[in-house]
Amino acid sequence: MKVAIAQLNYHIGNFEGNLNKMLNAVSEAKTKGADIIVFGELSTCGYPPRDFLEFDDFIKRCEDSVSRLAEESHDIAIVVGSPTRNPVIEGKDLYNSAIFLYEGKIKQTQHKALLPTYDIFDEYRYFEPGTEFNIVEFKGQRIAMTVCEDIWNVGNENPLYVTCPLDEMKSQNPDFILNLSASPFSYDHAEDRIHVLKANVERYGLPMFYVNHSGAQTEVLFDGGSLVISPDGNIFDELVYFKEEIKVYDLSEVKKGGIHRVQAKEKIALIHDAIVTGIKDYFGKLGFKKAILGLSGGIDSAVTAALAAEALGAENVLAVLMPSKYSSGHSVSDAEQLAKNYGMPYKIIPIKGAYDAFMESLSEHFEGLPFNVTEENLQARSRGVILMGLSNKFGHILLNTSNKSEMAVGYGTLYGDMCGGLSVIGDVYKTDVFALAKYINKGKELIPINTIVKPPSAELRPNQKDSDSLPDYDILDEILFQYIEKTQGPKEIIAQGFDEELVKRILRLVNINEFKRYQTAPVLRVSSKAFGMGRRMPIVGKYLS
Amino acid sequence: MKVAIAQLNYHIGNFEGNLNKMLNAVSEAKTKGADIIVFGELSTCGYPPRDFLEFDDFIKRCEDSVSRLAEESHDIAIVVGSPTRNPVIEGKDLYNSAIFLYEGKIKQTQHKALLPTYDIFDEYRYFEPGTEFNIVEFKGQRIAMTVCEDIWNVGNENPLYVTCPLDEMKSQNPDFILNLSASPFSYDHAEDRIHVLKANVERYGLPMFYVNHSGAQTEVLFDGGSLVISPDGNIFDELVYFKEEIKVYDLSEVKKGGIHRVQAKEKIALIHDAIVTGIKDYFGKLGFKKAILGLSGGIDSAVTAALAAEALGAENVLAVLMPSKYSSGHSVSDAEQLAKNYGMPYKIIPIKGAYDAFMESLSEHFEGLPFNVTEENLQARSRGVILMGLSNKFGHILLNTSNKSEMAVGYGTLYGDMCGGLSVIGDVYKTDVFALAKYINKGKELIPINTIVKPPSAELRPNQKDSDSLPDYDILDEILFQYIEKTQGPKEIIAQGFDEELVKRILRLVNINEFKRYQTAPVLRVSSKAFGMGRRMPIVGKYLS
Repeated sequence: MKVAIAQLNYHIGNFEGNLNKMLNAVSEAKTKGADIIVFGELSTCGYPPRDFLEFDDFIKRCEDSVSRLAEESHDIAIVVGSPTRNPVIEGKDLYNSAIFLYEGKIKQTQHKALLPTYDIFDEYRYFEPGTEFNIVEFKGQRIAMTVCEDIWNVGNENPLYVTCPLDEMKSQNPDFILNLSASPFSYDHAEDRIHVLKANVERYGLPMFYVNHSGAQTEVLFDGGSLVISPDGNIFDELVYFKEEIKVYDLSEVKKGGIHRVQAKEKIALIHDAIVTGIKDYFGKLGFKKAILGLSGGIDSAVTAALAAEALGAENVLAVLMPSKYSSGHSVSDAEQLAKNYGMPYKIIPIKGAYDAFMESLSEHFEGLPFNVTEENLQARSRGVILMGLSNKFGHILLNTSNKSEMAVGYGTLYGDMCGGLSVIGDVYKTDVFALAKYINKGKELIPINTIVKPPSAELRPNQKDSDSLPDYDILDEILFQYIEKTQGPKEIIAQGFDEELVKRILRLVNINEFKRYQTAPVLRVSSKAFGMGRRMPIVGKYLS
Repeated sequence: MKVAIAQLNYHIGNFEGNLNKMLNAVSEAKTKGADIIVFGELSTCGYPPRDFLEFDDFIKRCEDSVSRLAEESHDIAIVVGSPTRNPVIEGKDLYNSAIFLYEGKIKQTQHKALLPTYDIFDEYRYFEPGTEFNIVEFKGQRIAMTVCEDIWNVGNENPLYVTCPLDEMKSQNPDFILNLSASPFSYDHAEDRIHVLKANVERYGLPMFYVNHSGAQTEVLFDGGSLVISPDGNIFDELVYFKEEIKVYDLSEVKKGGIHRVQAKEKIALIHDAIVTGIKDYFGKLGFKKAILGLSGGIDSAVTAALAAEALGAENVLAVLMPSKYSSGHSVSDAEQLAKNYGMPYKIIPIKGAYDAFMESLSEHFEGLPFNVTEENLQARSRGVILMGLSNKFGHILLNTSNKSEMAVGYGTLYGDMCGGLSVIGDVYKTDVFALAKYINKGKELIPINTIVKPPSAELRPNQKDSDSLPDYDILDEILFQYIEKTQGPKEIIAQGFDEELVKRILRLVNINEFKRYQTAPVLRVSSKAFGMGRRMPIVGKYLS
């Protein structure tokens, strides 16, 4: 038996686009002699469809796609992921299902049992968990169909769940396992995934075909990395990261096993590729081509510009240099150098005129009061207005250049440098931004060395440095990581040896700046815990603030 | 037996504040001879605590509060709501529990079984559903404790759930029912609540004490309206809306029944009171006193200013009039009149200087291109910068003045008039904004009549009117209501008799403006479906766009 797996980049709610991709894949698989082709989870509508699932019309469109695919299932079996309706009145209206199509009909449907409802996942908001588990018989093979999370409770070791779907199917003697996934990227997820897949294969002694999505849906990135695992626990094949790929495998070869392939899983390289994919798909799926961003001469905007240039082509990235009287001479020349290194179009628009006009309008109201964060913010906001003006006039999307460290502690101006339709490096701590810059510069000085080595500064008042008000980034980032990714409270972090006052001050800053992050652009998620839909905090919460 | 119910305004994560409120209530109840006092759901930590629940330290603080309350439970039983730990490894780590304290100890704990996971609710993200149901015996009475949603599946009629906790407890012959709730306000919710409570009382023939929260937690508003229902199905008492109240009832009197009290439930009056509470608590819980907003002479900012003046005192609301060359003469005088009517401080700061400075900076880049939405946005953004400058310098929170209709169709400028820390009327359709204005003006022309009667206009280009680009608000609002509140798709809405092209255009506008709403301030929720955490839509979604 020949099994095709299709790792595709879907687009939420783009039924025609998703269907055409799948129909093309079916044709290709037929041509290559496949007996069966497997798509990803909720492949009819894309993942995560979120509250579109509450619209009856949206579900009908999913059903239409399944019907259309069924028509093509005469010479090949097609396994597609789609929401299906729960016929029972009690419980949620929908299931998240794997549908087995053959001979023009739905031959069997398996509902997802383990519904992730944590971090960015809201599946229990929409879906009823499946409770029946049946293998599919096809051409003499007994196939265990599972959906994503269903294989993440191997032998009931996952504390979140009480059911283990494959344990339930074991007595039906399956020959191999299919898994339809929409499993988002984070820089440490690929290792976890392989570990879990191997644990399944070892427990059941069966080959497994694991099909993931590739591409990005706003902030949620899919790396693909679809896997074929042999019964001996080795990786028979791993599909390429962040790209579409359709491959056909001979089941008997997979069963023989012994072949071991791997892709490099280096954190910074993965983050780089993930972000480039995120930018590309955000623009592509919204129908935009051109980006704009403010280039300050600092490392954050430099790295953002470099990633945008890779994703969209340098000619589609407009860099705007907006010096003020506090900008160092280096800032403009470093920024200009970066633009030239990439061949990016750039403009220099000083903010003096706008800033002075605001100060003049406000002078009588500010009389006698000292220069403070207000005037710093006026500079950042003048820049924001100029960038948005160009964006509106010429149809660019403005890229936000804030990093995770500054977003965490609120070191940024709302409606100023926090403007932008997409936060490119908002899930990358400052220390990793430096590592990204070095990675980008491998072999060639694309980002000027001076941008990398000079002390970080917002340049909003004379001789300002980040280190005036923040601890060193290596300490700051570690405290933030413990609080954000590891959900450690103040006592636990202090017990790790960090200064008590510092920990309390940092955690307080994170909490009191929730109101700013609430209004930030969607953040491309590259870690296990990004700001945005995966981290839900009360704004008026008093805890630790 | 005397039963005290305490309808309190908690503050998420303010353990000391919440505990002190409860301790004071316990003292008062003891003084009044109560045998038992009942608080709301998750009263130790406030509702909704969201991802704070993922911090072990946060749960410990909840446990500390329960222990402290237990110490006071020698002469009185105390029923408190709190997260408790699930000792079983499988499943979620926590329960959402009602804890019965007496004689210094936890006498019994009842876990919530029905976990709302829709709209603004994420309970299955954190909690394992309870599966055991036991009444509490206390001073010869048999008490059925339930938590909020647990009573919303009367006789299994709610399609969302398969369990009915009170049915499970029925065989244990309870004498009365307690319900600890954190049931958010929407303008049509009070009627639903009374209907459901009566249905429970009628099914079991038992009196019920229903204890809700009052006050606001960012966007989530609690109206209180705690209820005592007699076995005959009549309302024995309903606590006042949007205020704290502690009352003690003699169970034998409640059982006699026959008394029927009601509070008026007029939609616009309720919305008015809800928003005033929302503003007051947003400021109070964040430790702010003063608001700032732009006053345009139009109805949205007028109503927002009026509501803010009621919530914070007119002297704490700074109105800023920022005319441009497109502002009508009336705009300034109407705005000025409103400020004078309330005795609000106000400033007039024309935006010409800032706008001209931006146009000068951008003129060479815009050369030869016509005036369009870019220049309109530059005006709105110049205003945003001025307001934020004053806000930063003097410590005001900027109030956002966008209404639900314009937020829906994207008729507003991101980082311009969409600025603000709190969206006051973002869940109020334009037609209801007019109704609110008339309600506010009952008996006195506080909002100038001219503001109410003139055709709505953004005044960003010559002779602009909202009706140039939008249908009449009564039609627009009805289409939006069907799509947003009623989740009707295009076919269903067209079938109701609306113009096909118009429906498609409006729905498309709603969808393509998701990116703007993503970056909007939290919206005080007064309807059953507000923008924000209760409506989760993909930005790159293609469906209907």
